[in-house]
Amino acid sequence: MTYNKIHINPISPEPTTGSVLVIYTGGTLGMVYERKGNQLVPFDFQQIIEKVPEIGRLDFDITFLSLSEPIDSSNMNPEIWLELAGIIETHYDQYDSFVILHGTDTMAYTASALSYLLENLNKPVILTGAQLPIGVARSDARENVITALELAAAKNEAGHPIITEVCIYFNSFLLRGNRSKKKESSDFNAFHSENYPPLATAGVRIEYNLPYIKPFQEAQNLKVHKAFDNQVAFIKMFPGISQQVVESILNISGLKGVVLETYGAGNATTETWFLNAISSAIEKDIIIYNVSQCDGGRVSQGQYQTSKFLKQVGVVSGSDITAEAAITKMMYIFGKESDPQKCIEMLARPIRGEMSV
Amino acid sequence: MTYNKIHINPISPEPTTGSVLVIYTGGTLGMVYERKGNQLVPFDFQQIIEKVPEIGRLDFDITFLSLSEPIDSSNMNPEIWLELAGIIETHYDQYDSFVILHGTDTMAYTASALSYLLENLNKPVILTGAQLPIGVARSDARENVITALELAAAKNEAGHPIITEVCIYFNSFLLRGNRSKKKESSDFNAFHSENYPPLATAGVRIEYNLPYIKPFQEAQNLKVHKAFDNQVAFIKMFPGISQQVVESILNISGLKGVVLETYGAGNATTETWFLNAISSAIEKDIIIYNVSQCDGGRVSQGQYQTSKFLKQVGVVSGSDITAEAAITKMMYIFGKESDPQKCIEMLARPIRGEMSV
Amino acid sequence: MTYNKIHINPISPEPTTGSVLVIYTGGTLGMVYERKGNQLVPFDFQQIIEKVPEIGRLDFDITFLSLSEPIDSSNMNPEIWLELAGIIETHYDQYDSFVILHGTDTMAYTASALSYLLENLNKPVILTGAQLPIGVARSDARENVITALELAAAKNEAGHPIITEVCIYFNSFLLRGNRSKKKESSDFNAFHSENYPPLATAGVRIEYNLPYIKPFQEAQNLKVHKAFDNQVAFIKMFPGISQQVVESILNISGLKGVVLETYGAGNATTETWFLNAISSAIEKDIIIYNVSQCDGGRVSQGQYQTSKFLKQVGVVSGSDITAEAAITKMMYIFGKESDPQKCIEMLARPIRGEMSV
Amino acid sequence: MTYNKIHINPISPEPTTGSVLVIYTGGTLGMVYERKGNQLVPFDFQQIIEKVPEIGRLDFDITFLSLSEPIDSSNMNPEIWLELAGIIETHYDQYDSFVILHGTDTMAYTASALSYLLENLNKPVILTGAQLPIGVARSDARENVITALELAAAKNEAGHPIITEVCIYFNSFLLRGNRSKKKESSDFNAFHSENYPPLATAGVRIEYNLPYIKPFQEAQNLKVHKAFDNQVAFIKMFPGISQQVVESILNISGLKGVVLETYGAGNATTETWFLNAISSAIEKDIIIYNVSQCDGGRVSQGQYQTSKFLKQVGVVSGSDITAEAAITKMMYIFGKESDPQKCIEMLARPIRGEMSV
Repeated sequence: MTYNKIHINPISPEPTTGSVLVIYTGGTLGMVYERKGNQLVPFDFQQIIEKVPEIGRLDFDITFLSLSEPIDSSNMNPEIWLELAGIIETHYDQYDSFVILHGTDTMAYTASALSYLLENLNKPVILTGAQLPIGVARSDARENVITALELAAAKNEAGHPIITEVCIYFNSFLLRGNRSKKKESSDFNAFHSENYPPLATAGVRIEYNLPYIKPFQEAQNLKVHKAFDNQVAFIKMFPGISQQVVESILNISGLKGVVLETYGAGNATTETWFLNAISSAIEKDIIIYNVSQCDGGRVSQGQYQTSKFLKQVGVVSGSDITAEAAITKMMYIFGKESDPQKCIEMLARPIRGEMSV
Repeated sequence: MTYNKIHINPISPEPTTGSVLVIYTGGTLGMVYERKGNQLVPFDFQQIIEKVPEIGRLDFDITFLSLSEPIDSSNMNPEIWLELAGIIETHYDQYDSFVILHGTDTMAYTASALSYLLENLNKPVILTGAQLPIGVARSDARENVITALELAAAKNEAGHPIITEVCIYFNSFLLRGNRSKKKESSDFNAFHSENYPPLATAGVRIEYNLPYIKPFQEAQNLKVHKAFDNQVAFIKMFPGISQQVVESILNISGLKGVVLETYGAGNATTETWFLNAISSAIEKDIIIYNVSQCDGGRVSQGQYQTSKFLKQVGVVSGSDITAEAAITKMMYIFGKESDPQKCIEMLARPIRGEMSV
Repeated sequence: MTYNKIHINPISPEPTTGSVLVIYTGGTLGMVYERKGNQLVPFDFQQIIEKVPEIGRLDFDITFLSLSEPIDSSNMNPEIWLELAGIIETHYDQYDSFVILHGTDTMAYTASALSYLLENLNKPVILTGAQLPIGVARSDARENVITALELAAAKNEAGHPIITEVCIYFNSFLLRGNRSKKKESSDFNAFHSENYPPLATAGVRIEYNLPYIKPFQEAQNLKVHKAFDNQVAFIKMFPGISQQVVESILNISGLKGVVLETYGAGNATTETWFLNAISSAIEKDIIIYNVSQCDGGRVSQGQYQTSKFLKQVGVVSGSDITAEAAITKMMYIFGKESDPQKCIEMLARPIRGEMSV
Repeated sequence: MTYNKIHINPISPEPTTGSVLVIYTGGTLGMVYERKGNQLVPFDFQQIIEKVPEIGRLDFDITFLSLSEPIDSSNMNPEIWLELAGIIETHYDQYDSFVILHGTDTMAYTASALSYLLENLNKPVILTGAQLPIGVARSDARENVITALELAAAKNEAGHPIITEVCIYFNSFLLRGNRSKKKESSDFNAFHSENYPPLATAGVRIEYNLPYIKPFQEAQNLKVHKAFDNQVAFIKMFPGISQQVVESILNISGLKGVVLETYGAGNATTETWFLNAISSAIEKDIIIYNVSQCDGGRVSQGQYQTSKFLKQVGVVSGSDITAEAAITKMMYIFGKESDPQKCIEMLARPIRGEMSV
């Protein structure tokens, strides 16, 4: 696979304050208006300076790299996640920080997946995108890209990067990636992180919420993981869900885990057939991960009778993890670990700040 | 089935300004503190005046009725929805309005289901509940119950009820029921309605948002529907979802419909196996209803290539409907209509204000 | 006074869908980065296309006009308000709509003032600005300007402008101008309108809140008023405010009116000296306008004992008007009307949608 | 002055987990419905258990004390602030924590004033109140009082109080008192703290925002201050403000300080007469304290030309302090310190967490 690269040394030949690798994956952001044909066409990233001339005034070094085949983010998949992690691994020593231009639709899934793949990350990896293409007049793309670049380049007084996590920047807010969710398909304010505060807010100044940012670790070597296992499924509870539906899903051949989207603080029906079905699946080493349909709050198995049963049969509590972070965490863990008990142990606790203890 | 009833004529023997039937179904709200044993036990609704003495000062007539077997709302199911609709039908002429005390976990599902069952509703049906039991010191239950009662009793200057919809009242906000979602499992501010403004806000005064409230209809006879068909399932998209998972669900015997939880404005992967699977299901008269994973915004099939395919193979757009209103709408429509084309026609448009045109 | 004008016919020689006059008054927005000297200098509006090339792609006719002396909006004053109203009057028949680029600091005052000056307005007048200059890399200026232009050009199906009010557009929200307040000096989301909903929200699409927008009036002739009288002052209540302070302000020679910033729903101290001071001022035909220190809610004189006194001595209730709209309304009314009773009558009711009845 | 006291030892004769002194000052909260006459009358606090029976189930010791003359909070004044501080001083060793029931109108002023008076505070002082009286059916009073009591009694694992500041609890949020503002006169969600995050949020559980709470200090002796000096005034900037108004206020005999409510990040007009007036006042040792009209963000004198002048003539920057905290801070400082330079030094920095550095 070959990548296209373009390098911009913005203002001057003097040494810059840092270097950013921008990885373009596709998505709404990267569409431009083509006068001929009056239509939107995929972004020719080599002309980025023409579309966002402001980039030329940033005082750090920027290199653009495009996936050989940019994709609409609805087609994002674990293979590309591995590819992205690989690109970061390859360029990790060469660049100070990484910005990933990504479609909004699956950005929260990708941010979660990368957070798991990039163990001991100690440099910024910031995903951003846009609700409207960079190539139309009215667009949130320019502001999102520029600010993501500034956040990626930000250093503290000790000269270390302020951010050393996989994050999403969107519409003034920097969010922890594996805490994020696309909540709006139409507003510019598209992402939120209901159970964890924003890491930074961009206004006249950029204000960092330092107590909630993972601190820089002096000596830490990046370890990049190399596999996902997608033998997982969602089961979303609803009043009236049939035995047949639940059992059909739990009986899918090869299935290793299910994210069970429960009510409220982790509750589900206590009908006998349901508990039996869950129980049988667990006996067959299918892991059931209890994640709430509510954006806010957390699973607290045992608070009510209706969640106590789930705990008793061995369902694993997802605390306040998002569905996006949960399903990718399962795929990541099943990709590296085959012992169900070890999988359960990792699912039950935060491994990259994706859930509260 | 027998119901327990209790009647409170609050202040005086004079004619009251209205009458409210309160139906207790169970849930967190209805727990009281028992000094003996120092524990929470189910609500003895006959002592409601003792627990919420303020009810005795409301200037309208209140009758309490309890399901013979109150349930935790995680065990809510279509049978009880039919029972609730039946209770309202039976008492429709006798009372001016209805308040349903319900657990929060499935309240949005029940509100949606009742909105479909109660065609031509012309009186208030207001669901409420609480995050903390009415029987503990710190609780949101009292305020929610009292305000729901006041909203149910509210009349405009013409003497008609201001509200003639199935609504949820919770923590200062009156929401259209089939637009609501439980978004927080821990905060008192538990419900929201992302795509439709609140119908009223309770503060020092109750402020109604009249342009968004369904108006009272002079001559309109309640029609109560009697069936649900639960041969439905959810499929939630995620990057990496396997062919096996999708096909196993679509091949469940007897399945009539699927709510497909897509990305953003209604997008899904365009991989061939996926489109083929969807296409084959549709050919077998399984209806696929496109609903976004995003709370806000709407499905707009055809805006992007990744949703255009779905439209082409016959997926029905759910516009800005919630997952809760979508799955119950399917169960309702399949319960009354067997012709797939007629089902599709009803799914594609608002039938109770549950989606935007 | 001479103005600089520049005309842009963006895409083509074909007839455009409308024409917008953009009036530049100064402010943060209009600063550009000057490589030489590495500093921000006032905007040379003739190069606007260079700084915001996207403007060249809008499909309507845009004319730029700059005040001969652009000012920082902290120096805004009634003379310039009259000048702005005069420019709109002069160009009213020639253009379909007006966009005013204005510093954020006093934008809410200017929007209020213009709403009073422009009686029977039937075309859009949209103020916008930015928290960061258009000439730096990270800035909200481009998005605000582009969207304000699109809003100004928007027509409904009948071919009439959708907006026919003086509005502020800022960071995705179109607000009624005389309902707006600058609430944040640092966030991009700088303006709000606590007592009136946004008229439109800009995201992937622009969504209009039609029930709350003043409708287009078929036959209506603009009447532009020509005077302000600034013999007005604020008195802000606080516990401990001294008799000397209150009396010194009320005794300012020539004073015609005071905006009394009260507590909550219009309350003030009931100490005798205070009520006497207010009472004496009113007897001398000084008008006291009761406006709350709270952003939300409204003055309701008589609800509490502490506001009943104010009503009794003749204080005029400002309902839910903002301080900005109140002080400018006083200046406008005193500029056109010398009979105190007529002034009071106009202050007590909405004249441009600036308060609720 | 005599106070009425009542003591409640709620559940049992066993030793309780703590003791709370509740001080009733008056306000909306303390009104009850009187069946005879059908009206609201001041609260007879001896019957509090009857109105809020839930208090009897809290597991700590509660003592009620009422000001001899409860007042509507619009009549709050510095003398009562001193009285309140005195009550706390007198009872400081006897009780573990303090809850003050206060009208909402001036609660933010009182909370600020008490924060200054109570130096080295090491126990909770929590103000609360209500938008609707405790004695009407629909009311926020019960929930606010109960939760304030629970917050006051809360201890960490070391057995120390979690909160050791003067706070306001209202409608689920615990706010730092001198950061609070009444923003809504009608909504239950009446208070906010725009420049400092909530210290705690009450839902199913009470969640503390520990990084932002002042920590308990092991050895610290309460020092209660005894004076305020109210020779202070507000000047609120507005376009058109006249020389006469500004000079009349600055020339008030005996005036020691002015809170200048500026635009945005601390800007004001740069007209010569204005700068001269401010300059002359400063030469006469009148202190000018620059506080923004914006709720959010901070004064940053020197960022723009229009604030640079203010800095040059010696105006003191209030950073992100509220108007309420600023005017009370001035009264407190002038009450204890006569040297203007020392006053300026204290105004320019946080003394009780009321502003950011």
